[in-house]
Amino acid sequence: MKPILEVAESFGISEKYLELYGHYKSKLDLSLCSDLQNRPNGKLVLVTAMNPTPAGEGKTLTTIGLAQSLNAIGEPTIAALREPSLGPCFGMKGGATGSNKAQIMPSEDINLHFTGDLHAITSAHNLLSAMIDNHIFQGNALQIDPGQILWKRAMDMNDRSLRQIVVSLGDGNGNVHESGFMITTASEVMAVLCLSENLDDLKSRLGRMIVAYTITGEPVTALQIGAVDAMTVLLKDAIKPNMVQTAEGTPAIVHGGPFANIAHGCSSVIGTKTALKLANIVVTEAGFGADLGAEKFFDIKCRQAGLVPSAAVLVVTVKALKYNGGVPKAEVEKPNTEALKAGLANMRRHLENIGKFSVPVMVAINHFTSDTNEELQLVSEECQKLGIKAEISDVWAEGSQGGLKMAQTLRDILQQGMSRFTPLYPEDMEIKAKIETIVKEIYRGGGVQFSAKAAAKIAEFERQGFGRLPVCMAKTPYSFSDQPRLLGAPEGFIVQVKDVTLSAGAGFVVALTGNIVTMPGLPKAPAAEHIYLDEDGEVAGLL
Amino acid sequence: MKPILEVAESFGISEKYLELYGHYKSKLDLSLCSDLQNRPNGKLVLVTAMNPTPAGEGKTLTTIGLAQSLNAIGEPTIAALREPSLGPCFGMKGGATGSNKAQIMPSEDINLHFTGDLHAITSAHNLLSAMIDNHIFQGNALQIDPGQILWKRAMDMNDRSLRQIVVSLGDGNGNVHESGFMITTASEVMAVLCLSENLDDLKSRLGRMIVAYTITGEPVTALQIGAVDAMTVLLKDAIKPNMVQTAEGTPAIVHGGPFANIAHGCSSVIGTKTALKLANIVVTEAGFGADLGAEKFFDIKCRQAGLVPSAAVLVVTVKALKYNGGVPKAEVEKPNTEALKAGLANMRRHLENIGKFSVPVMVAINHFTSDTNEELQLVSEECQKLGIKAEISDVWAEGSQGGLKMAQTLRDILQQGMSRFTPLYPEDMEIKAKIETIVKEIYRGGGVQFSAKAAAKIAEFERQGFGRLPVCMAKTPYSFSDQPRLLGAPEGFIVQVKDVTLSAGAGFVVALTGNIVTMPGLPKAPAAEHIYLDEDGEVAGLL
Repeated sequence: MKPILEVAESFGISEKYLELYGHYKSKLDLSLCSDLQNRPNGKLVLVTAMNPTPAGEGKTLTTIGLAQSLNAIGEPTIAALREPSLGPCFGMKGGATGSNKAQIMPSEDINLHFTGDLHAITSAHNLLSAMIDNHIFQGNALQIDPGQILWKRAMDMNDRSLRQIVVSLGDGNGNVHESGFMITTASEVMAVLCLSENLDDLKSRLGRMIVAYTITGEPVTALQIGAVDAMTVLLKDAIKPNMVQTAEGTPAIVHGGPFANIAHGCSSVIGTKTALKLANIVVTEAGFGADLGAEKFFDIKCRQAGLVPSAAVLVVTVKALKYNGGVPKAEVEKPNTEALKAGLANMRRHLENIGKFSVPVMVAINHFTSDTNEELQLVSEECQKLGIKAEISDVWAEGSQGGLKMAQTLRDILQQGMSRFTPLYPEDMEIKAKIETIVKEIYRGGGVQFSAKAAAKIAEFERQGFGRLPVCMAKTPYSFSDQPRLLGAPEGFIVQVKDVTLSAGAGFVVALTGNIVTMPGLPKAPAAEHIYLDEDGEVAGLL
Repeated sequence: MKPILEVAESFGISEKYLELYGHYKSKLDLSLCSDLQNRPNGKLVLVTAMNPTPAGEGKTLTTIGLAQSLNAIGEPTIAALREPSLGPCFGMKGGATGSNKAQIMPSEDINLHFTGDLHAITSAHNLLSAMIDNHIFQGNALQIDPGQILWKRAMDMNDRSLRQIVVSLGDGNGNVHESGFMITTASEVMAVLCLSENLDDLKSRLGRMIVAYTITGEPVTALQIGAVDAMTVLLKDAIKPNMVQTAEGTPAIVHGGPFANIAHGCSSVIGTKTALKLANIVVTEAGFGADLGAEKFFDIKCRQAGLVPSAAVLVVTVKALKYNGGVPKAEVEKPNTEALKAGLANMRRHLENIGKFSVPVMVAINHFTSDTNEELQLVSEECQKLGIKAEISDVWAEGSQGGLKMAQTLRDILQQGMSRFTPLYPEDMEIKAKIETIVKEIYRGGGVQFSAKAAAKIAEFERQGFGRLPVCMAKTPYSFSDQPRLLGAPEGFIVQVKDVTLSAGAGFVVALTGNIVTMPGLPKAPAAEHIYLDEDGEVAGLL
């Protein structure tokens, strides 16, 4: 690793904008982006993916590798990534920093406490929780209905026992009521931080968050609780983007990591905008497959922040194609051209979908050693038929050298300047129509069934003036539909919207299809049992 | 502020041992202390206090000021302090970094997230909690009795609603059982971290922590849960001492902050030992008055770590003397020589008590503007009668210049080399006898009444082989007795030991007298409502 000071200087960032956390991590002062406001923006590229196998398809890996390869062909490029959550590292997920020759470093630090952003968000979230219950305890001047406290608590840990709890038992501890914990990445504070343009915007958004209803049914905001200024103080450093480097010394801005189901799943707006002022090209990612990740990136993040993406890269793998073609998870490493051909329907649909946003797209085939040449050839041929450029990416094994063609192809696309980015639906469409548009245009479902509860809440949100907000779909990432086992390119299914919630600070309405778990549990053999400090004091076992 | 690099260099610490967190905060690598092991130790001075008013008597302030003054008279001195907890800053306590000309800086950072130690401890604590419940959920191979889970959860926030909760409600979330949160400073992980000599010791201690009992009544440890290595990974940076500076550029090692009731209330052993290798004199503090703080510092921290204190400084204030002489809190600023004379009994007893550890002691009168000359004179005269040196400390108003006499007097005492430090009781005394010894020798009570539960648990702890551990008294800090309103120098009272708990990792048995709240609540008007970022982005309202 190079000192991060050196990495920053190579992109023209003066030392005065850096706040070092050791030699290899730094926060970037918020004044950096504003001081550079007259510079032209670089080009923004989204890395997204087809519907994945449960092992994931290497979206973060490809984002990192692609940024390295672009630098290698002479295009100053920065990767803008989500920062990992601590909890899942101890469950079964492993880290979220890429791997081998396409990773960000120091990966253990980034996966663990990093620069403390997640902890700050947890603290800000729980300060608000404590102040709400304390408000009620101390006389309840706002007349909050204790049965209508929407704001729960947050912890960056996988702990299923905390999903649903009863609090305030015992003498003198307040009104007994139900509560629960979500993992910190699911907190609206995280989504707010990631969508904020600056400290003032952060404060306004925090203030708009709806935390409860009064006994007469009126919403109560965080502003009314009096928590917003103190929360902003807790978040004053967390809002600053973090800079680290890839295995090849490419700068990476790693900042913010909201859930990709109940939130929008993208790294921070401030991080992206800062990167765009510093580099010719910024490569970023969005959570889950393109049906969720790309749609939310375009319709929520880009729309709110006024970002114009120049191109998208769809990551596919031979394994995921076979999985979507009907092969069970355990057998995706076995050659199976028939299943692969069937699975290509999934890729095709994602490519068509990205076209609906008028953003040019290419395919990156993330190469695994189990892939046969015949299989790889089939994917390439299919793309050729569709008029889509496709390149094999070997960035895992070879770093930038494994992605040179991918980088050149992407550069060609960018040079053509074909993006005419347009969100999928206009702001002033009704909420139900927005959901129906996403379901029909992107998922290709036959329609949407709203539960009575969801319909009533949507009507209420519109009455309260939230009708113009974009929609954030909370859906399984494994299928275009709301049924995880309906793989490939299903059609005609009906999506069930069981409930809706309002993230008034983040600025979206969440449509819940199926049961979305916002607090993961630990598996039978948690990864934590195999994580240790080795004899040299280095972290081992954290994958 | 000077760059912390410069502060460290002035005490001969090479840059290679520093891990910077911005320009003004640094962690010190653990190799620093071991690389210096052949250097002689400096002299260790404990700053303690008489029984306080609820506003506190300025122990931290005096510790910081005294370190500055010792440097001013040419004695290289480091202050070794506890690090503040985040939660209480939003309640009513304000920060814990001294103030005005005797404070540590950057005080807002230190009071808020600092270098993330408290967050790391919270995470390690809650990982263990999650793994215990997950162990039971996944089949309970250890046959843990779900009604006998001793290990609760931790959060660095004041939230009374979390004191007593029921977890695992809902489908698929495990066995419903009672749990609760304590504030992070009350976690045994904090006490363990503060008493550990190094990473190996940390691991062993974490492993010994008893988290539950089996259905056959056998203790279950964190080691058996399989959490210890991952917890150590989470704590790998938190165990490194933090260095900051005082308002005059004196180095301060600010590390660890365990509760002073259910734990021992002292900053970390590693921090203290590192400071002793770097300075002629190390000034440190212990929580609450000398009846709790000094006794635990001597009998727990110094005994376990093999530290030999050279002197103690007892902080007294005219206000606290009057308060102990019977004046109500609201009137302690009014002159009242009669009450002051009565209150001197409290000071006298603390001075005698410190003598029982064969450590020389002096008095520092922390000067407030409301003190009259006559009052100050009375305190000095009383000390003279007792053959104890006393000096007025004006470090709040004048920094080092306000403590020159105090520093010179302390240096004289140190030069005489009078310390023959001995703990109050031997290790092999029975637990009940240890408690009785503290009550009779230090508190001057008539005796101890053990509840049936406490007596049975003590017998059980001794049967399990924990009889040699020192005792950690959990008692009100306002009185020598277990009754907060029994001020001055009461005698003959009976102390009720209602319960005992075992901190097998920290290495002490906690004797609980009265109700000890391990999770504070927020007051009617929380400080959080007045904390904000000002126009320059600086934290305001955090006192």
